[in-house]
Amino acid sequence: MTSDVKFATTLGIFGNQSDRWCNSGYKQDKGVKELFEAASQVEELDGVELFGTWHINENNIDEIAQLKEKYDFGISTLIVDLFVNPKYGNGSLASMEPEVRKDAIEDVKKYMDIAPKLDCDILDIWLGQDGYDYPFQVDYDKAWDLLLDSFAECADHNKDVKLSVEYKIREPRNHLYLATVGKTLALLEKLGRDNIGITMDVGHGFFAYENVAESVVLCKKFGDKLFHMHFNDNYGFADDDLMVGAFHMQDYLVLIYLLKKIGYNRWFSLDQFPYRDDGIGACRESIRMLKALIEAVDSVDPKEIEKVITEGDATKSIALIRKMIFKK
Amino acid sequence: MTSDVKFATTLGIFGNQSDRWCNSGYKQDKGVKELFEAASQVEELDGVELFGTWHINENNIDEIAQLKEKYDFGISTLIVDLFVNPKYGNGSLASMEPEVRKDAIEDVKKYMDIAPKLDCDILDIWLGQDGYDYPFQVDYDKAWDLLLDSFAECADHNKDVKLSVEYKIREPRNHLYLATVGKTLALLEKLGRDNIGITMDVGHGFFAYENVAESVVLCKKFGDKLFHMHFNDNYGFADDDLMVGAFHMQDYLVLIYLLKKIGYNRWFSLDQFPYRDDGIGACRESIRMLKALIEAVDSVDPKEIEKVITEGDATKSIALIRKMIFKK
Amino acid sequence: MTSDVKFATTLGIFGNQSDRWCNSGYKQDKGVKELFEAASQVEELDGVELFGTWHINENNIDEIAQLKEKYDFGISTLIVDLFVNPKYGNGSLASMEPEVRKDAIEDVKKYMDIAPKLDCDILDIWLGQDGYDYPFQVDYDKAWDLLLDSFAECADHNKDVKLSVEYKIREPRNHLYLATVGKTLALLEKLGRDNIGITMDVGHGFFAYENVAESVVLCKKFGDKLFHMHFNDNYGFADDDLMVGAFHMQDYLVLIYLLKKIGYNRWFSLDQFPYRDDGIGACRESIRMLKALIEAVDSVDPKEIEKVITEGDATKSIALIRKMIFKK
Amino acid sequence: MTSDVKFATTLGIFGNQSDRWCNSGYKQDKGVKELFEAASQVEELDGVELFGTWHINENNIDEIAQLKEKYDFGISTLIVDLFVNPKYGNGSLASMEPEVRKDAIEDVKKYMDIAPKLDCDILDIWLGQDGYDYPFQVDYDKAWDLLLDSFAECADHNKDVKLSVEYKIREPRNHLYLATVGKTLALLEKLGRDNIGITMDVGHGFFAYENVAESVVLCKKFGDKLFHMHFNDNYGFADDDLMVGAFHMQDYLVLIYLLKKIGYNRWFSLDQFPYRDDGIGACRESIRMLKALIEAVDSVDPKEIEKVITEGDATKSIALIRKMIFKK
Repeated sequence: MTSDVKFATTLGIFGNQSDRWCNSGYKQDKGVKELFEAASQVEELDGVELFGTWHINENNIDEIAQLKEKYDFGISTLIVDLFVNPKYGNGSLASMEPEVRKDAIEDVKKYMDIAPKLDCDILDIWLGQDGYDYPFQVDYDKAWDLLLDSFAECADHNKDVKLSVEYKIREPRNHLYLATVGKTLALLEKLGRDNIGITMDVGHGFFAYENVAESVVLCKKFGDKLFHMHFNDNYGFADDDLMVGAFHMQDYLVLIYLLKKIGYNRWFSLDQFPYRDDGIGACRESIRMLKALIEAVDSVDPKEIEKVITEGDATKSIALIRKMIFKK
Repeated sequence: MTSDVKFATTLGIFGNQSDRWCNSGYKQDKGVKELFEAASQVEELDGVELFGTWHINENNIDEIAQLKEKYDFGISTLIVDLFVNPKYGNGSLASMEPEVRKDAIEDVKKYMDIAPKLDCDILDIWLGQDGYDYPFQVDYDKAWDLLLDSFAECADHNKDVKLSVEYKIREPRNHLYLATVGKTLALLEKLGRDNIGITMDVGHGFFAYENVAESVVLCKKFGDKLFHMHFNDNYGFADDDLMVGAFHMQDYLVLIYLLKKIGYNRWFSLDQFPYRDDGIGACRESIRMLKALIEAVDSVDPKEIEKVITEGDATKSIALIRKMIFKK
Repeated sequence: MTSDVKFATTLGIFGNQSDRWCNSGYKQDKGVKELFEAASQVEELDGVELFGTWHINENNIDEIAQLKEKYDFGISTLIVDLFVNPKYGNGSLASMEPEVRKDAIEDVKKYMDIAPKLDCDILDIWLGQDGYDYPFQVDYDKAWDLLLDSFAECADHNKDVKLSVEYKIREPRNHLYLATVGKTLALLEKLGRDNIGITMDVGHGFFAYENVAESVVLCKKFGDKLFHMHFNDNYGFADDDLMVGAFHMQDYLVLIYLLKKIGYNRWFSLDQFPYRDDGIGACRESIRMLKALIEAVDSVDPKEIEKVITEGDATKSIALIRKMIFKK
Repeated sequence: MTSDVKFATTLGIFGNQSDRWCNSGYKQDKGVKELFEAASQVEELDGVELFGTWHINENNIDEIAQLKEKYDFGISTLIVDLFVNPKYGNGSLASMEPEVRKDAIEDVKKYMDIAPKLDCDILDIWLGQDGYDYPFQVDYDKAWDLLLDSFAECADHNKDVKLSVEYKIREPRNHLYLATVGKTLALLEKLGRDNIGITMDVGHGFFAYENVAESVVLCKKFGDKLFHMHFNDNYGFADDDLMVGAFHMQDYLVLIYLLKKIGYNRWFSLDQFPYRDDGIGACRESIRMLKALIEAVDSVDPKEIEKVITEGDATKSIALIRKMIFKK
């Protein structure tokens, strides 16, 4: 399977990352050229993923197209900025302020227009500011109506561009509307548009105490909605965006097995924040770990795996894991 | 609002509760007569909720009908036993063993037949054993197919009896299929049956890091699916089934406000496990706390509440909470 | 009790707060004069707490002294910057790089020299960068040796200035050495210096699943180590630094009761990050909520509270909470 | 290292496990003879650990001694029952009822007398009922005084028998006094007795968001207090007592490396609850997984590991993990 997989990363992995204390960032800022140049040093990389405004906007499309060509990268997705601009601090597609919501919709449409120019057919939509922090702060019913309306309007703008919704249970808001795979699937069912689906950020799934493998199966089952994958790791209590291999191992094995089984054949894209660590190294090591995990899964005959799953005897599940990982 | 609310409790609150260490239970076992007698000592109580097998089965329907009449209790719901019988240890409605799954479906149907004889139109279905503990232990896709088939067959057995699905993120299994409000709504949407809805166990919502107030709004929004309410409290890390008032306070205020707003007019039913505490006292105190919370919400003009919610200024949200609770 | 309490806040509450996405901050930057001016608008405020470098450094001591006098504020504590400067990104007092560790020690000493000039006898030391993110990333044993050595050296610099250690379980590092009240008490015991104690940041305690009331009792018991209090709120999964009253209510009641009982008579200081909310309002509302909580505790005769605690009957505990809060 | 390690298990792994719903247990009860017989089928097993009352009491010492001899098992530890007997439901060594506390102390002393008769020099003391569930339910200060007094009295009963305290953050009580490694170390420091130390139940550490490897280093550092190890696994939110290998993998690698480095040479003992799974298989698979983990650690030169740890470059930490596990 390894040879078939296309690896990508968000370009920001090579840049400077800040947090609420160290707001200058732990490293040095880099321009988009330098970021592409850094990406080119990771031999395993086939594509990059660009944050709107930070890396790509209406003024630098040609420059990006050239960089993409120069380094022979695909663009795995564009991430619309609905969370960096302070204007969206209290919400974007579900903002209670009509002007703000209108801007957010326009921003999505703008990137729907840009994407095809970069041979990219998909946008990542993460509504990190659409939620709430306090009791009695928001009208939940109205917020969901706005979400439905905004998504419908965006999706209908161009049916050939996919909108891939990335859910997350919290952070930066204390509660986000699109929190779990289930809430997102319920929204998509209601929307009934073919070009809206789900970005499964593995770390967001872990954070919501989901078994991500079950979640991708549900995305497939409820309308073939698995559009994109984000890989990283965390300790289950926050969206740490660590390198793959930091903590979850067995969950990754099952996930990789099921991605193959359900026929997922799009990008394996990293979304990490190596605040204190070398970005090139962090990217490279995650891909190497992913490859090792894929090979571990591939090392066991799928019939044998299916047999274990069908029997349901957990002692055999543990033995299977030992065999996959330790070859004994 | 208080005067309109009908309070009920699971009958088990008055009995003996055990856990995995103290498996004899921390108190003394009681028969169903004694449990009803205990319930009758809680003046605020209008109804009781019975666990299948433990309290109600095909052989004691008349006895229960008499007790119910004697004490003038409504039966808020019957809880089908799909989790006490060790037969269901590896699953019930989603069991991979055809015989076990058939038994589970028959058990649901049996209680669908019993309920109307007790003037009860609703069953609570909690699939506490349908899930998994280990990686590579189960075929998620097949499990969801079985869930869908089983629920469809049960629902079609008698359209006049409601099936109210109670979700929970984990416990006793490490992952339960029906884990969150979102996954459950996605299932219900797929089922498309009017007589299947949701029991919102408040503690299960807290446990899944849901804002339960938003969750009940979604149940209403996505098909009018809020069928039943279970009240209790916990610290967010397990289904502690504590008395109301132990921990969550503000979340209860918002929830009560929204239950009223969306027109929920069915039972307020307790589901608690007072392992070491007096059951009668635990029941009474939870209802008194619920009444105090309801009065706190009612003490502020709904127009003022709506104004705060519409403005979205969190400092006013905190001021509103202070006013509701502390009258200052 | 309310009348005796001195309220303070970190000055940063009135400024601009950023996070890892919105790194420009959700509001506008403010200078230290503006921050003091904002603080002066909160009538309930008796003091302010200053972040080193951000608000106070060796070059503006006189300016701060004048502002302090102008507005008649006490300085509740100075917070040494061991976490904003990227130099400390991989650790400060426990840094494996001798030069960095030396700088960190010098920074502490520098603020020990500055504090008395502002009539302040205490520094807050939060080691937010001293920890680790990955397995096999650090030598735990050596790190603890360095912690012990650095703290000893700092403490001995001036025994009249208190060093108040603020623990936190994680964030920004995935694991922090000084994670819990227990680990911190074990460290202090080993250090055996009178002028090192603990800042109990209430939110950090909640985050570590501590009952903060028990934690302050232990600080008192194990060497009279409760030096300072930080108030805020969160949902238990991160250091949200919300306004008091957002989530925890009952825990605050017990805490306030016990602070009184053990004779804590130093500052009640807020440490909040109102990213999207008005800083003045956020400060004012937290203090008003704290006052309401204090009055709720004071409204019940301590003998009655002690009676409930002594009996250990949880149904009476719930009744007591209802009485404190709802007066019924 | 594998060849040097002595593996044991709690005997209960081979029996019947119940929970609060399925209180009959998911399997069949077994007598102590059958349990020993089952243990003998696990060829990798060198010893067993007995629960007081359930498996061992003053009346069956001879029988146990014979079984032990027959199967050539060591007794890794005796676990004093301070949590199964409903008498201890509200506390044992910290019980506010003098008679109950006296009984608990006597029970500890009784097992201190029994242990040497089985060539066992250590008791495991887990205070699972000593804690609280509600605010205003207990006098924390008094509880800690009682803990200190009780432990001192027990320890002084026979200085040649070790008391090994097993901490846990919660469950069955919502808060346990001995919650974390830090609180337990602070208690031990105060006690100042050589024969009281710590049982590191790995799952309890994970549950408290500890890096267990750091915790064992601290046990060593603060008075050479690492007396015993319990192995199992969980998902971080409860004490699931699963087989080793279910979830944590990297944490186990670091832990095993450090146990070796600090010279831990006592038992590797399993403490699991395979509710629905075959006990013999669950025991065998955990030991096989532990052996695979030990071999993985041993496969890399310690100098190389130390180099990675000393450098602190996380990308090299991930590469090291990949090498240990996947040999690439």
